[in-house]
Amino acid sequence: MDLEIVTIGTELLLGFTLDRNAAEIAQTIAAAGIRVGRTTTVPDRGPEIQQAVREALERTGAVIATGGLGPTRDDVTKRAVAELFSLPLEVDTEYLHLLEERFAGLGRSPMPESNRTQAEVPRGAIVLPNRRGTAPGLWLEDARGVAVLLPGVPHEMRGLMRDEVLPRLSERIRREGPAIVTRSRTLRTTGITESGLASLLGDHEDQVAPVTVAYLPQGIGVDLRLTAWGLPEDEAAAALDSAVASLLPTLGPYVYGEGDVDLAEVVLGRLRTCGLTLSVAESCTGGMIGARITAIPGSSEVFAGGVICYTNDSKVRDLAIAEDLLQEHGAVSEAVVRAMVRGVVRRFATEAGVAVSGIAGPGGGTIEKPVGTVWLAARVGSAERAVRIQFPGGREWVRRRSAQAALNLLRRLATEPEQEPA
Amino acid sequence: MDLEIVTIGTELLLGFTLDRNAAEIAQTIAAAGIRVGRTTTVPDRGPEIQQAVREALERTGAVIATGGLGPTRDDVTKRAVAELFSLPLEVDTEYLHLLEERFAGLGRSPMPESNRTQAEVPRGAIVLPNRRGTAPGLWLEDARGVAVLLPGVPHEMRGLMRDEVLPRLSERIRREGPAIVTRSRTLRTTGITESGLASLLGDHEDQVAPVTVAYLPQGIGVDLRLTAWGLPEDEAAAALDSAVASLLPTLGPYVYGEGDVDLAEVVLGRLRTCGLTLSVAESCTGGMIGARITAIPGSSEVFAGGVICYTNDSKVRDLAIAEDLLQEHGAVSEAVVRAMVRGVVRRFATEAGVAVSGIAGPGGGTIEKPVGTVWLAARVGSAERAVRIQFPGGREWVRRRSAQAALNLLRRLATEPEQEPA
Repeated sequence: MDLEIVTIGTELLLGFTLDRNAAEIAQTIAAAGIRVGRTTTVPDRGPEIQQAVREALERTGAVIATGGLGPTRDDVTKRAVAELFSLPLEVDTEYLHLLEERFAGLGRSPMPESNRTQAEVPRGAIVLPNRRGTAPGLWLEDARGVAVLLPGVPHEMRGLMRDEVLPRLSERIRREGPAIVTRSRTLRTTGITESGLASLLGDHEDQVAPVTVAYLPQGIGVDLRLTAWGLPEDEAAAALDSAVASLLPTLGPYVYGEGDVDLAEVVLGRLRTCGLTLSVAESCTGGMIGARITAIPGSSEVFAGGVICYTNDSKVRDLAIAEDLLQEHGAVSEAVVRAMVRGVVRRFATEAGVAVSGIAGPGGGTIEKPVGTVWLAARVGSAERAVRIQFPGGREWVRRRSAQAALNLLRRLATEPEQEPA
Repeated sequence: MDLEIVTIGTELLLGFTLDRNAAEIAQTIAAAGIRVGRTTTVPDRGPEIQQAVREALERTGAVIATGGLGPTRDDVTKRAVAELFSLPLEVDTEYLHLLEERFAGLGRSPMPESNRTQAEVPRGAIVLPNRRGTAPGLWLEDARGVAVLLPGVPHEMRGLMRDEVLPRLSERIRREGPAIVTRSRTLRTTGITESGLASLLGDHEDQVAPVTVAYLPQGIGVDLRLTAWGLPEDEAAAALDSAVASLLPTLGPYVYGEGDVDLAEVVLGRLRTCGLTLSVAESCTGGMIGARITAIPGSSEVFAGGVICYTNDSKVRDLAIAEDLLQEHGAVSEAVVRAMVRGVVRRFATEAGVAVSGIAGPGGGTIEKPVGTVWLAARVGSAERAVRIQFPGGREWVRRRSAQAALNLLRRLATEPEQEPA
């Protein structure tokens, strides 16, 4: 099955906004064995939208369009495509009530008039309910083919693709014949560079053929995407399983998980299994580690909290660090970061802890401790480990990499604590 | 002048690679006053490339195409477009010598045969020398219009755009009439929805014509992009200035800044001007506010730190909140969030503070306090303000919106403290 994507938005044509939606939709449907023949971007104007959707239908008989479904005046997609299908717009009373209830639930009653237009749908179109926003997705179909309209807000588009569009497209493919799919699995690594991974893997890459390996650097780690192309479903799964089994021993402790799992989730899972609680002491990361940990639902079972000790005063007062330790070694030092992790586990009465102190820049660097110098410490029970890392990149990347490395230090200590007792 | 962009590459249609070239070309030429009518992405196949370039020429008479000019087998753009213009490929001996000299300079002599094909150009085409790579850009022109072919490697494309393509396009525009540009300014708002903004602006949108207003929802606020299209440079600037001056009074306190400024930066700037220091007490946001604040270089002048009080124990111990207050009102309550902000400013001895306590979900909601219920408090000197907000969205959006709303509460209190003394 072939399909085209039409993304709608004058902003996209001004180049201010990157067209991430087109890439995401393409990835999603390629995985389902559907080929994207073409992607077209047009401005928020009715005639251009109609032309692009009509041409796409003529070429492939199937089009997914995103953008231009919001309540404001520059959102004209629905009207344009309804005209193309010669369908009048009608209020879908069921969807209108659903919208009104949701606005009432948020204490915003009556609903603004502009949102009312979002319940207008082309007669006979399938309404794809949008739980994450107010504009529903729409599925229009006639003899020329299928046009699916989705909102341009990324997480709304993503939810509708997964919940509504993909199941319908898959059903259609099933009806058309034997299913050939393209499947991927992603191994997430951290603590090693792209070129480091490449030399580690070496010839192993060829040995997993026909599965291919793509290196996807994420800034705080490198994802390895293994892809089995154009195979029956069970063969694709088996090829990927065997490729993963063959690569994992070589990759060793650099792999922390699969798919889109976050390192914080892996760490929390490990600590939960061991029945341990966690606290954090953050200087240069300023709350980023806490934010990553608490992003995980259920983190409160493990995470007690922490101190953002951005000043020396706070380190002394809140983490009981001796002032002369700070004066002798400086805040960015092994002695202080070890005292930080001990101080925070004591204050919060947790078994595990992690601490970060570093120079994120742009100011504050010296010859001995240039910008990017970061000390990390982790503690699990009586085991403790501290490392100094020199991170590349500007302030934001030094901070992100520090948070990631701190979580990774904690993961490895919680997984292999016997290696280095305190 | 109108123009279309065609990006060529099967990997773009698989979604693994984001189409940053299209966005960059669009920005570059929009700033020169050229409107991008459409962007099309097609695979590395001759017929599809020809079709896309032909259609673009028919619509606008000018097209910039990138990709498919390299020496490998999947690079077919040059041959496809030469055929479209009915031009034979011929070796450009001057370019061939230049290539051979560069390979010799790199100690790679003789030059690989595959690179020799890169010196073949359509007869009569203008060769745009590529100092950063081996594939030259090409400028083809006949009665139907202009087709510019550029390599897909971003820095080669960028260099050729700047050195060769833009000067030629500008010259063409100059010949066609007075130099015109397209300019934008972005106003950042928060604390109001897209539809709320639309009803607030109402007819004002028409009054700023010919400047147009685009609503760009960001999840934690809505950006308003004002654009002056196709005007002489000074008129565009004046039209934008006047549009901003006319909209600001209507938008009032919802606007916190311009361009890509972060709200945390605005808050820090305001506090720095007033000579005030800041601390944070975070429950459901778990460090996100601290992370946003410390992302700003120089934040240490204002920011002292904070407590991530993820448990009631921490609220009692670290923020001196009375246990019976927690038992009577619950952690997500006005009484507790006010006690949190007072506790943290006392502990950190800062003049300003902000506190958040809420139910991010997915668990923990009740009928009275459903998921998304968040209490925020801010304090500046002796002024204090607390609000309850019911945020929509899943865990991550409730948290992001809470962090944003907390910073906004602080901004407004620091800007208009007289409205509500504590």
